[in-house]
Amino acid sequence: MALLSLSRRLRRTPFSEGVEAAGVKAYTVYNHMLLPTVFESVEADYRHLKDHVQIWDVAVERQVELRGPDAGRLMQMLTPRDLRRMLPGQCYYVPIVDETGGMLNDPVAVKIAEDQWWISIADSDLLYWVKGIANGYRLDVLVDEPDVSPLAVQGPRAEELLVRVFGDRIRDIRFFRFDMFQYEGRDLVIARSGYSKQGGFEIYVDGSDIAMPLWNALFAAGEDLNVRAGCPNGIERIEGGLLSYGNDMTDDNTPHECGLGRFCDTQTAIGCIGRDALLRVAKEGPVQQTRPIEISGDPLPTCDRYWPMYANGKRVGKVSSAAWSPDFNTNVAIGMVRITHWDPGTMVEVEAPDGMRQAEVRENFWI
Amino acid sequence: MALLSLSRRLRRTPFSEGVEAAGVKAYTVYNHMLLPTVFESVEADYRHLKDHVQIWDVAVERQVELRGPDAGRLMQMLTPRDLRRMLPGQCYYVPIVDETGGMLNDPVAVKIAEDQWWISIADSDLLYWVKGIANGYRLDVLVDEPDVSPLAVQGPRAEELLVRVFGDRIRDIRFFRFDMFQYEGRDLVIARSGYSKQGGFEIYVDGSDIAMPLWNALFAAGEDLNVRAGCPNGIERIEGGLLSYGNDMTDDNTPHECGLGRFCDTQTAIGCIGRDALLRVAKEGPVQQTRPIEISGDPLPTCDRYWPMYANGKRVGKVSSAAWSPDFNTNVAIGMVRITHWDPGTMVEVEAPDGMRQAEVRENFWI
Repeated sequence: MALLSLSRRLRRTPFSEGVEAAGVKAYTVYNHMLLPTVFESVEADYRHLKDHVQIWDVAVERQVELRGPDAGRLMQMLTPRDLRRMLPGQCYYVPIVDETGGMLNDPVAVKIAEDQWWISIADSDLLYWVKGIANGYRLDVLVDEPDVSPLAVQGPRAEELLVRVFGDRIRDIRFFRFDMFQYEGRDLVIARSGYSKQGGFEIYVDGSDIAMPLWNALFAAGEDLNVRAGCPNGIERIEGGLLSYGNDMTDDNTPHECGLGRFCDTQTAIGCIGRDALLRVAKEGPVQQTRPIEISGDPLPTCDRYWPMYANGKRVGKVSSAAWSPDFNTNVAIGMVRITHWDPGTMVEVEAPDGMRQAEVRENFWI
Repeated sequence: MALLSLSRRLRRTPFSEGVEAAGVKAYTVYNHMLLPTVFESVEADYRHLKDHVQIWDVAVERQVELRGPDAGRLMQMLTPRDLRRMLPGQCYYVPIVDETGGMLNDPVAVKIAEDQWWISIADSDLLYWVKGIANGYRLDVLVDEPDVSPLAVQGPRAEELLVRVFGDRIRDIRFFRFDMFQYEGRDLVIARSGYSKQGGFEIYVDGSDIAMPLWNALFAAGEDLNVRAGCPNGIERIEGGLLSYGNDMTDDNTPHECGLGRFCDTQTAIGCIGRDALLRVAKEGPVQQTRPIEISGDPLPTCDRYWPMYANGKRVGKVSSAAWSPDFNTNVAIGMVRITHWDPGTMVEVEAPDGMRQAEVRENFWI
């Protein structure tokens, strides 16, 4: 780890006070904002996430709000996923692509109403692209970043905790659906979603003023559930195959390369800006693709740059994320592998900071 | 300071190896990349910058390249500064605004040729806005981020050092102009510019492969000049009134509020997307504006959030950057002050983390 100099530019969140009181040990910077990365230790946080329930300050998932008659049209311009059957109350994971099919972000789109959408973004200023498109195409839509800060509740006891605060109706929310709940007189979107595979919810906290009251209410309600402050966990998300924009993909990659082809309806997503480029990719297929990689040997250090991947001395890919998994007793990793070597079971070599390691391309992530 | 968890997403630069060897002590994150903030200490780095010469890894100033017949037209759409008389070889500081006149970035535009521009950006993904506009208006222009990483040479001995490596022609470069110089067979843009008031140059290193060779060559040539690795200095830049996007301004602000009205030719910048909105601002004037603020008392802690500013118990502004200045023996700061209290000499109160402080609105920065 390194030292981070703080400044106003690295924005605090409406939950920062709670995060600090909970003893946060380290951060990353995400959408110009502080995102906690460690509370007790990455390994202890991982164990606790899988066994109990955690509250995560994920205010860094900033919202891009589209409002107005052209909101739906604009949303479809942004993504190759066909949105025609999407209903208010649904959340869709949507690759966002430019005119060449390059990934600009991989957010979750939240359809509030026919004329109102939130895009809950990964780490890039998607607001700028959306505003530029709305302006250039003269669409009748308002685009901005509202004062909405997601708070995630993740882990096997997440439902139990939320029921205590918001009532039994929480149980009726299906995966990637949301419903509206009242808190201190405010209507809040609560979705069954989140950046872990342990189950849970994301509360879209609408208004910074109710952020800490809600944070405190959740901790008070969950004391006997061993609730703790947590954060997206580097081990758990790799085990589960949750990609990270900027780590595992950039604007160099198409959705198909990232294994997101199932979210691309290139035949029917009429109006998508990157559709022409992606039609070709969909037809011919990518020449490299994201794969789970199991790396042998002792626990690896932090993957803070691409680690080249070789076979018979030839470059065949790169690893972008890696961690030691206590549960699977191996190094779990995500890599981009060329077509010649991406079949499950293929043995490759990964150039880690401490030397060359044997590695295997896997069929599935560790879930 | 806090701890920073490293990952691929926080990109290293082509100079990171040199920065680490030089003993970097802390970073910030800027354009998804690591920017050094401390080598010896902020105060020692400040002293050395003012007395000697430093080499700065400012690769975080990513370039947005515009290439093609519509490059000039697009560049003018982005900024209210009139670019008609700008010549190849010139650099312009250009506020970039959206259709409401809100600041999206405050970069330096480098005109390489009539059909080729680089925009050397502050901390926001300006690439996304520019790509969106180019696409929406169907302009005949290519927009991308080239493999160009600026390396700054700053301080009173900067010219002397560069002459040793690039020859006497360095002396002929005027302020905010550039010329082309050869290095290892590569043509490099070298401009007399940089994010300090101590004088110096920025070398636009075109190709990561020559980054470390050039870094090493500069250190070798400057040994007797007491050359050191450095970085933009938090004290020096506030003394000099160099604003920081994300700290001292956001997309909530117009250029006029930031005191950048002199870079807005709203009458003649025909084609600028934000022109209509700014015409009104230019006519009526802003109701708040950036000011130098002198804050009394002991050295202040880091300004990591807005500090409210009051007069007679009423809110009249906020401080966004502050530091203790050894040379001026006071706390220097940058704030946004309402029209009622922005006259030089006005006394206000600033709510610092350790309590209320007396402060004075100044006419000029400390240079």
